[in-house]
Amino acid sequence: MPNPTAAMLVIGDEILSGRTQDTNTNHLARALSAHGIDLKEVRVVADEQGAIVAALNALRERFDHLFTSGGIGPTHDDITADSVAAAFGVPISVREDARAALEAFYRKIGGDLTPARLRMARIPEGARLIDNPVSGAPGFSIGNVHVLAGVPSVFRAMVASVLPTLRGGRPLHSETLRAERGESEIAEGLGRLAAAFPALAIGSYPFRQEGVLGTNIVIRGEDPKLVAEAMARLRALLLGAGGDAASVRAEAGGE
Amino acid sequence: MPNPTAAMLVIGDEILSGRTQDTNTNHLARALSAHGIDLKEVRVVADEQGAIVAALNALRERFDHLFTSGGIGPTHDDITADSVAAAFGVPISVREDARAALEAFYRKIGGDLTPARLRMARIPEGARLIDNPVSGAPGFSIGNVHVLAGVPSVFRAMVASVLPTLRGGRPLHSETLRAERGESEIAEGLGRLAAAFPALAIGSYPFRQEGVLGTNIVIRGEDPKLVAEAMARLRALLLGAGGDAASVRAEAGGE
Repeated sequence: MPNPTAAMLVIGDEILSGRTQDTNTNHLARALSAHGIDLKEVRVVADEQGAIVAALNALRERFDHLFTSGGIGPTHDDITADSVAAAFGVPISVREDARAALEAFYRKIGGDLTPARLRMARIPEGARLIDNPVSGAPGFSIGNVHVLAGVPSVFRAMVASVLPTLRGGRPLHSETLRAERGESEIAEGLGRLAAAFPALAIGSYPFRQEGVLGTNIVIRGEDPKLVAEAMARLRALLLGAGGDAASVRAEAGGE
Repeated sequence: MPNPTAAMLVIGDEILSGRTQDTNTNHLARALSAHGIDLKEVRVVADEQGAIVAALNALRERFDHLFTSGGIGPTHDDITADSVAAAFGVPISVREDARAALEAFYRKIGGDLTPARLRMARIPEGARLIDNPVSGAPGFSIGNVHVLAGVPSVFRAMVASVLPTLRGGRPLHSETLRAERGESEIAEGLGRLAAAFPALAIGSYPFRQEGVLGTNIVIRGEDPKLVAEAMARLRALLLGAGGDAASVRAEAGGE
């Protein structure tokens, strides 16, 4: 059975204006790789309902899961929940369990559930809440769409809440080999290696570090044995082509 | 005349697997904001021709400019140039001016123009080359699509080469006010402010720093006077609502 697929939709003017560097995508990508869900596409759109709804509908139809980040706070520019309700064509209103979660949170920190805060209890009909241990206001899942906060610490907590509830596949296994050789010197050999291992993804990423020109070669696949076999062939290829052991360094494991 | 619009297409398995944190989008977003071009959407897709062509065609039709990042190196997984040719329905082959640029570069660093390197001189018919002072292999523009390298230092050099050739609009001006107040405490006032200034984008970004809970409020617009006027109203609003001057700090200027 192939791994489930996923897409990510980042909602936020602050990413598009360059004010904020998005880091949620990278966090989700790593978590999904480890869980055996393949992230296939990412989109970033502005805080505009038309753009959000169009992206929601395009992505939830094409992939097994869609994760969103941003736009579920208490202010006027937080329009993600309404956009999700519009995309699914369902009503949205304050839900009692979400209100209770917020009330409990604000009681704990000594605040009131003001009308602005209550806005965060508005949940599209038919959704399941996602726990937010950091700041109270819940995320939610509806159909195959998982709606998470944009603040990185809250986003991460919500990923940790929702990911274990999703069926995973085979985690992506990767090994990286660092070669002190320009990418174009090894391109032909890499091409032959990729053709010999069609089940693996073989990527090459040039770098320039302290005057040294080199290439990180990453072999990714679901079968660790096959990855190791391709890596052994790669090492032989580089050593055979005049490389010495010191210029070729492997790091197995984490993507 | 409204500002020109743009989209960004990041091509690369290494972003989707989480191995690499994309920083090219943030660099481009800042450069475009300063040049008066509005970045409206970003997509990240895998190194798969079908996905690349679909995204290229969707985005180049909807926006004035499309910038791509990644996939123009010498290896088997570098398929961006071929995908662009396929999207435009034009032939692709080694071009003499691109070959000359590569030859000059490798002569300078003392290398040969091997078949793998020559692959980087394959340019879709009708494209204009984009200078690459860092590593020789050029990018190119075809129609409204600007095809840039993925390595950040090369991407930045190519942005610097191409951006001055594009008509800019009014740069986005922004001011940020840091308030030591939770987002939900100021949400109502912000909503009223946003309604009073429909030409501005008013965003609020909660933070938690050394135990202090607060909100950065960013007011963005093309007219610096209007931004300043809204900022003065915002400051009055926050001071009026029990804030003291020390808890409200403004930084004008750079997005």
